[in-house]
Amino acid sequence: MSYKSDIEIAREANKKPIQEVGDKLGIPGEHLLPYGHDKAKVSQDYINSVQSNENGKLILVTAINPTPAGEGKTTTTVGLGDGLNRIGKKAMICIREASLGPNFGMKGGAAGGGYAQVVPMEDMNLHFTGDFHAITSAHSLLSAMIDNHIYWGNEQEIDVRRVQWRRVVDMNDRALRQINVSLGGVANGFPREGGFDITVASEVMAILCLAKDLKDLEERLGAMIVAYRRDRSPVYCRDIKAEGAMTVLLKDAMQPNLVQTLENNPAFVHGGPFANIAHGCNSVIATTTALKISDYVVTEAGFGADLGAEKFMNIKCRKAGLAPSAVVLVATVRAMKMNGGVAKEDLGQENVDAVKAGCANLGRHIENVKSFGVPVVVAINHFVTDTDAEVEAVKAYVAEHGAEAVLSRHWELGSEGSEDLAKKVVEVVDAGNANFGPIYPDEMPLFEKIETIAKRIYRADEVLADKKIRDQLKLWEEQGYGNLPVCMAKTQYSFSTDPNLRGAPTGHSVPVREVRLSAGAGFVVVVCGEIMTMPGLPRTPAAEKICLNDAGEIEGLF
Amino acid sequence: MSYKSDIEIAREANKKPIQEVGDKLGIPGEHLLPYGHDKAKVSQDYINSVQSNENGKLILVTAINPTPAGEGKTTTTVGLGDGLNRIGKKAMICIREASLGPNFGMKGGAAGGGYAQVVPMEDMNLHFTGDFHAITSAHSLLSAMIDNHIYWGNEQEIDVRRVQWRRVVDMNDRALRQINVSLGGVANGFPREGGFDITVASEVMAILCLAKDLKDLEERLGAMIVAYRRDRSPVYCRDIKAEGAMTVLLKDAMQPNLVQTLENNPAFVHGGPFANIAHGCNSVIATTTALKISDYVVTEAGFGADLGAEKFMNIKCRKAGLAPSAVVLVATVRAMKMNGGVAKEDLGQENVDAVKAGCANLGRHIENVKSFGVPVVVAINHFVTDTDAEVEAVKAYVAEHGAEAVLSRHWELGSEGSEDLAKKVVEVVDAGNANFGPIYPDEMPLFEKIETIAKRIYRADEVLADKKIRDQLKLWEEQGYGNLPVCMAKTQYSFSTDPNLRGAPTGHSVPVREVRLSAGAGFVVVVCGEIMTMPGLPRTPAAEKICLNDAGEIEGLF
Repeated sequence: MSYKSDIEIAREANKKPIQEVGDKLGIPGEHLLPYGHDKAKVSQDYINSVQSNENGKLILVTAINPTPAGEGKTTTTVGLGDGLNRIGKKAMICIREASLGPNFGMKGGAAGGGYAQVVPMEDMNLHFTGDFHAITSAHSLLSAMIDNHIYWGNEQEIDVRRVQWRRVVDMNDRALRQINVSLGGVANGFPREGGFDITVASEVMAILCLAKDLKDLEERLGAMIVAYRRDRSPVYCRDIKAEGAMTVLLKDAMQPNLVQTLENNPAFVHGGPFANIAHGCNSVIATTTALKISDYVVTEAGFGADLGAEKFMNIKCRKAGLAPSAVVLVATVRAMKMNGGVAKEDLGQENVDAVKAGCANLGRHIENVKSFGVPVVVAINHFVTDTDAEVEAVKAYVAEHGAEAVLSRHWELGSEGSEDLAKKVVEVVDAGNANFGPIYPDEMPLFEKIETIAKRIYRADEVLADKKIRDQLKLWEEQGYGNLPVCMAKTQYSFSTDPNLRGAPTGHSVPVREVRLSAGAGFVVVVCGEIMTMPGLPRTPAAEKICLNDAGEIEGLF
Repeated sequence: MSYKSDIEIAREANKKPIQEVGDKLGIPGEHLLPYGHDKAKVSQDYINSVQSNENGKLILVTAINPTPAGEGKTTTTVGLGDGLNRIGKKAMICIREASLGPNFGMKGGAAGGGYAQVVPMEDMNLHFTGDFHAITSAHSLLSAMIDNHIYWGNEQEIDVRRVQWRRVVDMNDRALRQINVSLGGVANGFPREGGFDITVASEVMAILCLAKDLKDLEERLGAMIVAYRRDRSPVYCRDIKAEGAMTVLLKDAMQPNLVQTLENNPAFVHGGPFANIAHGCNSVIATTTALKISDYVVTEAGFGADLGAEKFMNIKCRKAGLAPSAVVLVATVRAMKMNGGVAKEDLGQENVDAVKAGCANLGRHIENVKSFGVPVVVAINHFVTDTDAEVEAVKAYVAEHGAEAVLSRHWELGSEGSEDLAKKVVEVVDAGNANFGPIYPDEMPLFEKIETIAKRIYRADEVLADKKIRDQLKLWEEQGYGNLPVCMAKTQYSFSTDPNLRGAPTGHSVPVREVRLSAGAGFVVVVCGEIMTMPGLPRTPAAEKICLNDAGEIEGLF
């Protein structure tokens, strides 16, 4: 049996004009700003006009710790959205935008897969509606204005050794990780150390994804700390007077992007903050707008549930006043086998014992999610080599752990394959048993917040942090930042900080290497281990094979 | 009497849906890719479909050497286009896109003025349809791939001291002019010197504006020289295998952008190469497409006629097989007075003698343009303080110099004010007396090409260049680049290389400081004097005042 590739399926998509897709949601044509015939931004006027509507129900799709076998979180998000539409529900999905740069390193593509995809997939992996370019521009403007401020007399007395604001570019360019700038003499400024991160790591990205509206965006931008003075007092973006012009640059980027699934169901694809040094979910404005115009909104969070769902709950939901009605936890038989110790090349062979052994990882995620007061449905994202016995083993395990697992075949069959999952999710949501709450209160001291996550989610014994880090946290508390949530940056491959420790480890420690204050976004980043904010390209970058073929189609991007 | 500001007039514009504007040209709706309701890209399929049409007539708008008084070249281009439509001609205009970065330094706005503007002016000065972002991305990808190539073993044996390819960003950021990259240890590559230019200075921009189609674009990108080896042999972009992916990134940016004037007449706004180190006119694809779908196409070139028109004729027209039917040379009474020695603050007072004295600059431009075999119409762009006697003095001077001057009041009155100019231009064009030819042949040696321009256009006595520069030119001739045109980079304020030498200087020398080969764009850049490819921000950047007002409108950008 042979299967079509994602790009082949996407090219055969029978896309509807985006106005028809908007029409399903009741958005009038004049409130859709088209970008081509298959993408549009929703106008702020329209968003304002629906604010008195009742909210629909929010469903979060998350997953076990990622393995090289692939879990299919976005694919399941799309499949569930299509499934809900199939059974007659007014439903839409909200997912993140893809970053441009990484597509030129490894093979890209972040819009689902098989028959559960969002289109136009090529645009979504390239410039899309220009949101990330706008973020790069706004970030770059502030960068230029900071050095320009220093150049013209440094009225704010910025300590050039303590400029926190790095530059960004949406490209994997390791040569820019660490640079010296303002070389070449008087006309070029005061030499200092600097560096670039990739655009998705910008605090501007995190802010765009957390801001309620343009006013809130401007205030948050102004509150960003860009540098410190010799006396260690912070210099804010508003001291440089950049936040107004940055807001102008981000005006259109703040509007959610409407596209469609292969089955012509509506999807917002908007924002894409890093899932380690930021919170890793699509924009608040997309999610809150979707809830006003549809009855069921399916969204997803980055990485596994220990990082993505935790931040979704403790950061995004807390800050935006959202409350999920259910969580769908994606697992695959193959990933269970890898967690059970099977090598990637042996995943094709039935191994029920390994599946059972690997389920510990899934079990802990179920427990964790339930501790936020939200019911869990496990979606077994079907792979063609899965055997019935293996699937049954997962189902039995999940049933023993207080949830229900549903086999879903959306990758192969589209909504026909996800109908059962959709029905189960509606049943759980409509039962109304969710009683959502974050797992720590705002007023808890910062270090205790870190400990709470480490112990309750990661099941670590302790958090290790030297005095300098604890003192820094205390200083921020004194400065009024103590009520912020914490944003954990650790490996996504394990509950622990050791990426090789699969399954459900215990007895480990969480060492905190560094803490950073994202004062505009509104969280304290807690870095546990090596976190790369500027990726490099591999020895043979995907870019070498990417080109237009004679038919004008893009080759090599997927 | 009080006048409305450009932005006030633009906000009151009665814009038509872009499909209606396209309809005027016969472009079907499915061939317009909308960006919002008032901007669209024209599909490649449509462009292909009109290739057998007859060409319309091409009219170039150029100007005297710019003065602080302002000449209004774009304003006149727009006014003439509207005037031609007013008198019943099927006419459109082609102008350049604005660069984002400089708007945040000085007050921006590059879409005409008064009642002769192109809209939406705010979008055109911000992200527009993302073309420049696409160019920045394509350029950045190549930058990253070059350092990545070196990092992974440097198979091409690039000499890290001789990497020619700088990085770009569309922001005025002087701190990036000269930097050291790849610092911080083994994982970040081999330290070397580097730097950033502003995006419009990228060779990718020049190529996009000269390429016939995507195939030609890809070939030209591949032919760019990015570095040299120790033996001085060139390393091309195609050696790094970047041209395919760069073309994918530029796929949409290659399509011309359709917008409208305040009077709802069609305008292509596409591409914007630097007018010093590149050729400074809108894209070839926009101009050639416009000629296929309208009877009269009004376009403009950067700076004064000594730089802009010369490059338009010798580079763009030569390479694209274009032949202008007439040139409109824009002058103002105020600029004549400044050329005649009047200070800016005294321009409001009548001074016929100064006008007469200043006309020498205009006279030489008339002669120069006629030497390309193209008839000239002088447009006196009316300013409200101009007196009749001053206007008559210009007209009389022009008549004595073998051309005709027409007073045009488009800034104040729109097409009602430019009707006379439009009629005169049609008369000259339809007389069919143009017999265009570049002023030097392809086969002329490179140094002689420089001398030809210096002596025939600038009226210099000699070109000064040391042996190293002459040897470099000879080496390029041996390598097969001798047939390329030369692209002069000198001050726009004077025929000479001294910006303070107004009027019509003679007896001067043109010192060549540096020559650069743009092998993909297809010209040799001849740098005469200081050329800044990365501007800085002023002490008080315009960005400090730019913001959204309570009505959501942009303040401070214009």
